[in-house]
Amino acid sequence: MPTITGLSVADVRFPTSRTLDGSDAMNPDPDYSAAYLTLETSEGERGYSLVFTIGRGNDVQSAAIQALEPFVRGRDVQATLADLGGLSRELIGDSQFRWLGPEKGVMHMAAGAVINALWDLRCRWEDKPLWQLLTDLSPEEIVDLVDFRYLSDVLRREEALEILEAARSGREERLSALRASGYPAYTTTPGWLGYSDEKLVRLLRDAREEGFGFVKLKVGADVEDDVRRLRLAREEMGEGFPIAIDANQRWDVEEAEHWLRRLTPYEPYWIEEPTSPDDILAHAAIRRSVAPLRVATGEQVQNRIVFKQLLQADAIDVLQIDATRVGGVNENIAILLLAAKFGIPVCPHAGGVGLCELVQHLVMFDVVAVSGSSEGRWAEYVDHLHEHFETPVRIHAGAYMAPSAPGTGARMLEDSVAAYAYPAGEMWRSVGVARAS
Amino acid sequence: MPTITGLSVADVRFPTSRTLDGSDAMNPDPDYSAAYLTLETSEGERGYSLVFTIGRGNDVQSAAIQALEPFVRGRDVQATLADLGGLSRELIGDSQFRWLGPEKGVMHMAAGAVINALWDLRCRWEDKPLWQLLTDLSPEEIVDLVDFRYLSDVLRREEALEILEAARSGREERLSALRASGYPAYTTTPGWLGYSDEKLVRLLRDAREEGFGFVKLKVGADVEDDVRRLRLAREEMGEGFPIAIDANQRWDVEEAEHWLRRLTPYEPYWIEEPTSPDDILAHAAIRRSVAPLRVATGEQVQNRIVFKQLLQADAIDVLQIDATRVGGVNENIAILLLAAKFGIPVCPHAGGVGLCELVQHLVMFDVVAVSGSSEGRWAEYVDHLHEHFETPVRIHAGAYMAPSAPGTGARMLEDSVAAYAYPAGEMWRSVGVARAS
Repeated sequence: MPTITGLSVADVRFPTSRTLDGSDAMNPDPDYSAAYLTLETSEGERGYSLVFTIGRGNDVQSAAIQALEPFVRGRDVQATLADLGGLSRELIGDSQFRWLGPEKGVMHMAAGAVINALWDLRCRWEDKPLWQLLTDLSPEEIVDLVDFRYLSDVLRREEALEILEAARSGREERLSALRASGYPAYTTTPGWLGYSDEKLVRLLRDAREEGFGFVKLKVGADVEDDVRRLRLAREEMGEGFPIAIDANQRWDVEEAEHWLRRLTPYEPYWIEEPTSPDDILAHAAIRRSVAPLRVATGEQVQNRIVFKQLLQADAIDVLQIDATRVGGVNENIAILLLAAKFGIPVCPHAGGVGLCELVQHLVMFDVVAVSGSSEGRWAEYVDHLHEHFETPVRIHAGAYMAPSAPGTGARMLEDSVAAYAYPAGEMWRSVGVARAS
Repeated sequence: MPTITGLSVADVRFPTSRTLDGSDAMNPDPDYSAAYLTLETSEGERGYSLVFTIGRGNDVQSAAIQALEPFVRGRDVQATLADLGGLSRELIGDSQFRWLGPEKGVMHMAAGAVINALWDLRCRWEDKPLWQLLTDLSPEEIVDLVDFRYLSDVLRREEALEILEAARSGREERLSALRASGYPAYTTTPGWLGYSDEKLVRLLRDAREEGFGFVKLKVGADVEDDVRRLRLAREEMGEGFPIAIDANQRWDVEEAEHWLRRLTPYEPYWIEEPTSPDDILAHAAIRRSVAPLRVATGEQVQNRIVFKQLLQADAIDVLQIDATRVGGVNENIAILLLAAKFGIPVCPHAGGVGLCELVQHLVMFDVVAVSGSSEGRWAEYVDHLHEHFETPVRIHAGAYMAPSAPGTGARMLEDSVAAYAYPAGEMWRSVGVARAS
């Protein structure tokens, strides 16, 4: 019987800080990076995954993933893939590793990476893209994947089953629509803080011409700049065109309220990450104060327990999952179920390294089999670094086209992994590593 | 001018799982461990600190601390020690490292370790124990240490100053009392889940005879066992003797309510960690349901932002700081100020490796200069592993005696560090590393 023989981790970093791609009010000079995991079986099959980081510390994230190797080494492949719910609970529940979170930060993302690599392996084994593999599961198989611990005051297994059963209605129509038109995307490409006004306007125009029906701007560094940039964007895109704004956790409550009062005349669609992702009560307070402006967060929300409370406390209008922040596909399924229960749209965070490739599967699964809705939903898209992936996302007329290749989308090109390996890859030898160390 | 030349980290683990010392409902077989940091200056001065973990992953925690070396290497010692508030904000705010939390888990504890090693260096430089160094600071100097980001909706700099000014009254009397009688301790030594009933009763008797006025029992694995053990403890200690219980996050809301209904007849003093430390709203719900039983948590609360919300939401009656979970002394001062504002007693978590040695300083500072109160306050004490420290805690008549040696208490004996280094130290070579890897 084939077994898992081990895993290897590469510290891959892209020198994006040179161009200010990805710059925002909290992250002025990110070097987009991936702690990139390859899991191997005794038959030579492989599963791939990654954790996205923005530079320094990618070595720590890599070490955390490597530390989980003894947990998977020697396991029977088929038995493991047949019970990824059990594996996930066991790994995330490991008492000694759990102490380092619990269920948050470096160690939790490492567990998520291992779980996601097993999903990638399973997808290749079953010859399906992840979104299709998940939509082909029965409601019972789906709830078996979920850890309901710390959720049962809001969502129990039976209720999750009911949500999934209800989503059977209209499923074939949604599947056909998804295959024909894809999943709506929005673009953040025009809106980075480091860009000039002229570049902002030009990229907004490009976005509209490419068919995007929703764009996002970074805010939070300087209020006068933000007013000017949002006004320019509103003039360029016209009345009613959805333009979201994103403060990347820059504010306290009162500061958020003051700042947003200056920006609401330009009718932003949502304010994203107004404050710390840990601050459920502050999000709720800001939301009450700035209504009807929508409040969104999630890309750095640590786990299902915090998402549960954001929903309980009426703190958000839009829930933003991230493919590599939480404990893998399983925990993201729990979060999709929570959002569905509260009727809150999921608009995932993407960009970075591979996040578009990964997260598209989760929302495609969501629209077909969980929430059953695409209303008020867009998946973020940033035109960054896709060329380093085996199966880069395909965007057509402002939508993600459903992937057909087997896998979760995480596999990178071997040449890219080698060239951007930090600090020894040839790209880093040529640009120099001093400032990123 | 002397500079910081670097830091070294040792992965130190004690094979405590062999004896079931430290066993509880979530952590059945901990190997108490420390990612142990030594920071050096160009003059040969040293500062020490550690992060407590329970085994697997101590290598990851060590790697995270090591990754912060470039952040401190080459800094001027005096300028750094004179502005530990600035250093702390800069380190915790580093945008690239911050992505790995933010402000939580392995990376945040690593930042806390570096900050605490600088405090240890400063204590040695000024020839004072930490508690005395802190109490000798002016209110302005203390608030300069605090990062009020994400706190200002509840606590601003001016209000923190008022709290500290108010604590000047009666300060000399409290200082004299502290020097004479120490800080009240409670003991968890009798209450580990792995112990027999006979051992439980014997250790309870010992605790009372040693002068402890408060004890704690672990619960949460089996309700019938818990009822029996708590009944035995109540019989042994008598009516009115405070006996706390600790579930180590074992329950969901409804489960906690059911379980506690069985235990309240034996009048526990508080229920500690009934559920996930991330779940502010669940703590609030449980507290409403089990009142007047007090609810306590904190040893795994990730940062000041979550503590703030636990207080805002009336979710806890007792706040339990931990010396190595958050971003160091500075963030713990913020948490002490929050607790003082809400009038909630601080009863720190200790035990583990060095946590007693470290945390005693913070509550001694609290009683003299922040809350100004010792009412309803006890610092946890566990009789574990003190022999490995340069200045082990001194317990007399159930109280922590105020330390007089300079430092934060973190320095371990060099022989212990060498013997318990994992996996190459002689103790591990003799007991074998297989099960802990």
